[in-house]
Amino acid sequence: MRKQGPVDQNLGLVFLSELVGTAMLVLLGCGVVANVVLKGNKGFGGGFLMINFGWGLAVFSGVIVSVYSGAHINPAVTLGLLANNLASGNEVNWAAVPVYIIGQLIGAFLGAVLCWLAYKQHFDIEEDPGAKLGTFSTGPGIRHNGWNLVTEIIGTFVLVFVVLGFGVQGGTDAGSPAGLASLGALPVALLVVGIGASLGGPTGYAINPARDLGPRIAHALLPIKGKGSSDWSYSWIPVAGPIIGGVLAGLAAPLLLVAAA
Amino acid sequence: MRKQGPVDQNLGLVFLSELVGTAMLVLLGCGVVANVVLKGNKGFGGGFLMINFGWGLAVFSGVIVSVYSGAHINPAVTLGLLANNLASGNEVNWAAVPVYIIGQLIGAFLGAVLCWLAYKQHFDIEEDPGAKLGTFSTGPGIRHNGWNLVTEIIGTFVLVFVVLGFGVQGGTDAGSPAGLASLGALPVALLVVGIGASLGGPTGYAINPARDLGPRIAHALLPIKGKGSSDWSYSWIPVAGPIIGGVLAGLAAPLLLVAAA
Amino acid sequence: MRKQGPVDQNLGLVFLSELVGTAMLVLLGCGVVANVVLKGNKGFGGGFLMINFGWGLAVFSGVIVSVYSGAHINPAVTLGLLANNLASGNEVNWAAVPVYIIGQLIGAFLGAVLCWLAYKQHFDIEEDPGAKLGTFSTGPGIRHNGWNLVTEIIGTFVLVFVVLGFGVQGGTDAGSPAGLASLGALPVALLVVGIGASLGGPTGYAINPARDLGPRIAHALLPIKGKGSSDWSYSWIPVAGPIIGGVLAGLAAPLLLVAAA
Amino acid sequence: MRKQGPVDQNLGLVFLSELVGTAMLVLLGCGVVANVVLKGNKGFGGGFLMINFGWGLAVFSGVIVSVYSGAHINPAVTLGLLANNLASGNEVNWAAVPVYIIGQLIGAFLGAVLCWLAYKQHFDIEEDPGAKLGTFSTGPGIRHNGWNLVTEIIGTFVLVFVVLGFGVQGGTDAGSPAGLASLGALPVALLVVGIGASLGGPTGYAINPARDLGPRIAHALLPIKGKGSSDWSYSWIPVAGPIIGGVLAGLAAPLLLVAAA
Repeated sequence: MRKQGPVDQNLGLVFLSELVGTAMLVLLGCGVVANVVLKGNKGFGGGFLMINFGWGLAVFSGVIVSVYSGAHINPAVTLGLLANNLASGNEVNWAAVPVYIIGQLIGAFLGAVLCWLAYKQHFDIEEDPGAKLGTFSTGPGIRHNGWNLVTEIIGTFVLVFVVLGFGVQGGTDAGSPAGLASLGALPVALLVVGIGASLGGPTGYAINPARDLGPRIAHALLPIKGKGSSDWSYSWIPVAGPIIGGVLAGLAAPLLLVAAA
Repeated sequence: MRKQGPVDQNLGLVFLSELVGTAMLVLLGCGVVANVVLKGNKGFGGGFLMINFGWGLAVFSGVIVSVYSGAHINPAVTLGLLANNLASGNEVNWAAVPVYIIGQLIGAFLGAVLCWLAYKQHFDIEEDPGAKLGTFSTGPGIRHNGWNLVTEIIGTFVLVFVVLGFGVQGGTDAGSPAGLASLGALPVALLVVGIGASLGGPTGYAINPARDLGPRIAHALLPIKGKGSSDWSYSWIPVAGPIIGGVLAGLAAPLLLVAAA
Repeated sequence: MRKQGPVDQNLGLVFLSELVGTAMLVLLGCGVVANVVLKGNKGFGGGFLMINFGWGLAVFSGVIVSVYSGAHINPAVTLGLLANNLASGNEVNWAAVPVYIIGQLIGAFLGAVLCWLAYKQHFDIEEDPGAKLGTFSTGPGIRHNGWNLVTEIIGTFVLVFVVLGFGVQGGTDAGSPAGLASLGALPVALLVVGIGASLGGPTGYAINPARDLGPRIAHALLPIKGKGSSDWSYSWIPVAGPIIGGVLAGLAAPLLLVAAA
Repeated sequence: MRKQGPVDQNLGLVFLSELVGTAMLVLLGCGVVANVVLKGNKGFGGGFLMINFGWGLAVFSGVIVSVYSGAHINPAVTLGLLANNLASGNEVNWAAVPVYIIGQLIGAFLGAVLCWLAYKQHFDIEEDPGAKLGTFSTGPGIRHNGWNLVTEIIGTFVLVFVVLGFGVQGGTDAGSPAGLASLGALPVALLVVGIGASLGGPTGYAINPARDLGPRIAHALLPIKGKGSSDWSYSWIPVAGPIIGGVLAGLAAPLLLVAAA
């Protein structure tokens, strides 16, 4: 892969890179849901496997265009790598953390706006407000704070833990912010297809606070015809669950991915 | 990948290479639509994800057999790379541009003729003229010049922007006409699967003027049994939209894919 | 990939290698059809995309275990490479050609027997003799000697032409019998997924005389409960079509894949 | 790939590595079945191809996080490699074998518990005890000891035989316990997608004693609401079949994958 300078040298570039990558992720990720759930689309009723591939390839594209920051495009990854660095005794660049997360959130918001523009007419003719919100943000099949949180924690643990495993397998410095993108975008794309198929059933697999919160804010602000509630009472679960799962994976990796020790 | 001499040395070879690659692209791409929408086929009713994989793998094969021109096989890519070169201050070989585009258009026309031959009997028994045209060219779910154009612009922006991202990630000279094929055909194939799943809902993702216009001309000229209109009133959208989206991506890349600067 | 000695040094090993590879191809390829079309299976009604992936991954596995012969596992590939060598002025080892093809045919027969054993009870309870034959061999959606032949010619042309393109892209000696396997098994697997999705509609894409004839002989000889005709009147089309298509691709490659010249 | 020290140097790390890898495999593998078969999930009714991709990508993730033991994560692979080493005249570390298998079984049990937690509410509302057991362990479409055994033997033979083929193709020492993971996780993931699609119809493709027995024990012990029988009368088949198939493949490889001789 490409050579990368130290990512903390220019926080402005980190910000731009995370913003662009997360916007791409959310444009394509929310896009596949729109295609499958909004009336009048060619992909209407295309099924959950299509959604899984759509989100996986959204990660693929998002990682590719996030060229200067290691392509976290997910606060759970940023915080999981942070926890992993702390647990491994590595140095941490604390100033970069909020830059990453704010870039991710703004990017996710912008990606959701672009998705809405691409599917504008289909939002207009769709009658079900639940389908509209579901295009932006996740919601549970069976609502229950505790169990929904458990599912998001497990799913995000798998995401960050296997990403750290890529670093071990590839012999790269996955503990650094630059680790992920340098591995290539395909493994993480396949991983996200797999997590969606295998752990996405109960909550729709946010596994990324920015992916859920940014579009939910867009849903609240945009003049979407006939929209309903933005379901703020659920909104903390796809934020807290992924953060907990990502941090746990970062802490567990030095113990369980033993070759990393 | 293979070594490539300067692609502008022999415009005849560039012409042949783009013609062959685009013919392969359209044969396989229109083929999967024929399989899914024309009566009596083994893949009839196979769903949109099957169409997405079919088009993605059509790109894969088309790029492989376009061996002497960088495998643009899409005027929006050619013009996007041109815009990117201009914005980046690189030299441009102006004479090559029409050679690329004419090769692409003729290739797309020939690919559509081959697809018609492969599915000849199924065109004959199919009663719906819309299904026949849909095998050749794209059409919108909800007709609206402005919004259909927006969707094609966004889809093609993603295509060209991520292709330029491949160049940055791979450290190759993606701004040159030879950049795309030298990266290998798999990433762009996966990208097209993803764009189809995520942004193909409203207009059927032409994202390539030659892919849409060449087959539309074939539809108009071929003696297809019981064919209807070639829908010329819509035909400018899958030409103009992709060109605008590709050029915008070429201009945006030096700003947003910052490591390319 | 691995180093390979000249493949013509030991025709016994070539024979074994083609037999093993083609048996694996047909076991897995016919297997996915059995899963989708025979009653009582977990994959019953799984759709054509599942069949496309099953056959593509059957090629993947077959190429991997055909370790000493270049993994043609298809007479149309053997004869296409032969034609390509003749057209390119390369030397040809004539004695190897029948060894390849006989190994492929016997392997295909054995693979079909293994598939029948794996699905024995489902053959027993299935009432439709057409579904049973369809598990072994291909048949057309709309029967017509001329057009069915055209479809098989076009499909196999694409197969052999793109395989020759892999050789050009990879810089390997694809004209030699050892060329295919040394490229890795994934590109050809993806190609076969794509050909199935895009050109498999009318005839079920034999694109390989051994894949169709070997299992048809097995169908005729095995004591399959309630089996019907082996449809010998159609059997020459999936033999002649692929041979014609493969040879045409071998001859066309020096003209159209110009960098190979 | 990474460098690996001799895997038998530290059996504690081997144990941990197999436990972690198999837990990941079963969490994601049983997870995709839960998503497709348990009521109220986003992936409910998603089809067998989705299950095939889910299990394939579960293998992908399991291999990645099994970093110190060659990532067998399957007793049939461990015993198949053992048989292959014996048949090839290589040295065998007998003490490692039970460490591998016990780690795999405990990991499989833990993965099933995690899957149950991730899908807890969907187990609670599901009324069909068969769907619940089917999420944990395999069962046949048509029950028959002999033929079900044959299907599992053939499926696992393919798994271990092609894995040994990867070693030959890659030029690595696949006969050693470290061989599998060092090849990268993608080929074996694709292989498992293919085996599932092609040979998974009759018995649901255990092809791994730990994958079936560990979750079956979890099913028997966990307080699953409204669960039925754990079907112990069938339980020996997905243990014995895979072991027989894996050992046969290990013995056959030196004869049939001739370049390995």
